[in-house]
Amino acid sequence: MERLHTLYYLLDLAGTFAFAISGATAARQRGLDLFGICAIAFTVACGGGVIRDLCIGAIPPAGLTNWRYLVAAMCAAGATIGLYPFVRRLNRPVLFFDALGLSLFAVTGAQKSLAFGHNAEVALLLGVVTAVGGGVLRDVLLNRVPIILEREIYASAALVGAGIVVLGYYFDWLTTDWISIVALIVCFGVRMLALRFHWNLPVYSIRKS
Amino acid sequence: MERLHTLYYLLDLAGTFAFAISGATAARQRGLDLFGICAIAFTVACGGGVIRDLCIGAIPPAGLTNWRYLVAAMCAAGATIGLYPFVRRLNRPVLFFDALGLSLFAVTGAQKSLAFGHNAEVALLLGVVTAVGGGVLRDVLLNRVPIILEREIYASAALVGAGIVVLGYYFDWLTTDWISIVALIVCFGVRMLALRFHWNLPVYSIRKS
Amino acid sequence: MERLHTLYYLLDLAGTFAFAISGATAARQRGLDLFGICAIAFTVACGGGVIRDLCIGAIPPAGLTNWRYLVAAMCAAGATIGLYPFVRRLNRPVLFFDALGLSLFAVTGAQKSLAFGHNAEVALLLGVVTAVGGGVLRDVLLNRVPIILEREIYASAALVGAGIVVLGYYFDWLTTDWISIVALIVCFGVRMLALRFHWNLPVYSIRKS
Repeated sequence: MERLHTLYYLLDLAGTFAFAISGATAARQRGLDLFGICAIAFTVACGGGVIRDLCIGAIPPAGLTNWRYLVAAMCAAGATIGLYPFVRRLNRPVLFFDALGLSLFAVTGAQKSLAFGHNAEVALLLGVVTAVGGGVLRDVLLNRVPIILEREIYASAALVGAGIVVLGYYFDWLTTDWISIVALIVCFGVRMLALRFHWNLPVYSIRKS
Repeated sequence: MERLHTLYYLLDLAGTFAFAISGATAARQRGLDLFGICAIAFTVACGGGVIRDLCIGAIPPAGLTNWRYLVAAMCAAGATIGLYPFVRRLNRPVLFFDALGLSLFAVTGAQKSLAFGHNAEVALLLGVVTAVGGGVLRDVLLNRVPIILEREIYASAALVGAGIVVLGYYFDWLTTDWISIVALIVCFGVRMLALRFHWNLPVYSIRKS
Repeated sequence: MERLHTLYYLLDLAGTFAFAISGATAARQRGLDLFGICAIAFTVACGGGVIRDLCIGAIPPAGLTNWRYLVAAMCAAGATIGLYPFVRRLNRPVLFFDALGLSLFAVTGAQKSLAFGHNAEVALLLGVVTAVGGGVLRDVLLNRVPIILEREIYASAALVGAGIVVLGYYFDWLTTDWISIVALIVCFGVRMLALRFHWNLPVYSIRKS
């Protein structure tokens, strides 16, 4: 249990940093000011987790009460501002960090919901919400239709990751740590392959006049 | 109490399905992909209820924990995708289903708030939030000003429905079930008449230069 | 403690009225109808506080359960509709009332979080959320990028106000009431000076091609 908790924690921090980088990059490209960049970085990093914590009754939300998340988000915002040429040199930084954060958050989100004693459906839905909630808030705040609703395998990858965690928990495959690692790799793999090969979900384009 | 609970439950499921149809139709017309259609359908169906449950302390929210809501929303999304010509043939499907869901949710939202022991104002406000919350989230996600704020008697009809429930509860008119039915019919009637005769609330158009 | 509570209460009501005026003015200028104006007024007035109360576990949120807030918001909406020429004559009414509400809410938000036993980070973040949450919701509902993320010292002023409250609480400067008054004046002053002299936070404009 202790080891699981430590694993949660490290994954959560890494995901926080990765998402904050993606948020700060989007905010900077949109021309927001210093506060705007920090606020969007923090929102993307902690928004999904805060919604999850409100829904499972973890009050106050970990994203607000644990200074390490705030520090991770501010470091990411600082890096995006100060080391932008470096961040840019990582080809497609937004997409890569996004995929990493997505996988990490889907797994930890589903696990935290299960750890609070909620059922499989809550864990599945909140795994997806933890993973994509921050990105949806980012797009709503930047005033555009959330990119995840329009194209590409994105939330679906999170659904796969959260699903593996939930199935592993109920059918007692392997240890929890190994399941986490498998779920992480599968989710990240699905997302990267979808990006590489331009996998898309079907769109039903018969528009109504 | 048992019978009331069953009534709640059936109304809630029917409202969920109706709202999900309206959400899926809007998402499909906007050209979202499969996941986007399902996500918007679920958000419209359960968004208002989740906000209500967070505010009254019903953790975890019923919309997340009860698989029947998820199944109802997914069936509605499936019907909108697979049977679109049929859904379209119902003239103005979005408007009709919207009015039905609106009435159902305003009544159940107000009743659930009262059943959790909260006061008349909470019941009134959360009745309206349950009814219009999903639609507002839909419009925010689809990146437009929520239609309910701009024109037509819509949220006002929900306010009337929730108001009848609250008044009936405090002044002990009829039985709770009869009050629900009266509130439902009045709310649905107001909304359909408003659509038919283009009733609008006043707009104050002196724009500031 | 009693006196502190009364102070909270009066500040909260005054802030509610001020924010509701700002929300109703923006909604009216956008051409929303009667319900839309009332809804935006109430959202701006109580939205930040409701998010704060959900995060600190104050269920149901004070903004929904206390009729005085609703009455204050409706009076503000009524004044904006009925006395618009008067409200307009106050030069830049939106900006002035906004600055007043901002300061009041940052201070009361941070204090309420501390009063519920949460730590300094929660108080700081929720002070800012209480202050700017309503305005962000207003801009999201009116379908634009929240103004506070793009330019001017706004949320930063709230951060300063909340910071003074938190520091005063931990280092036990003066009495709580005096700290509130100092924090209020500093926050309001920073905001008005920023407006007067067009202070802005830096923008990092190297856009990615």
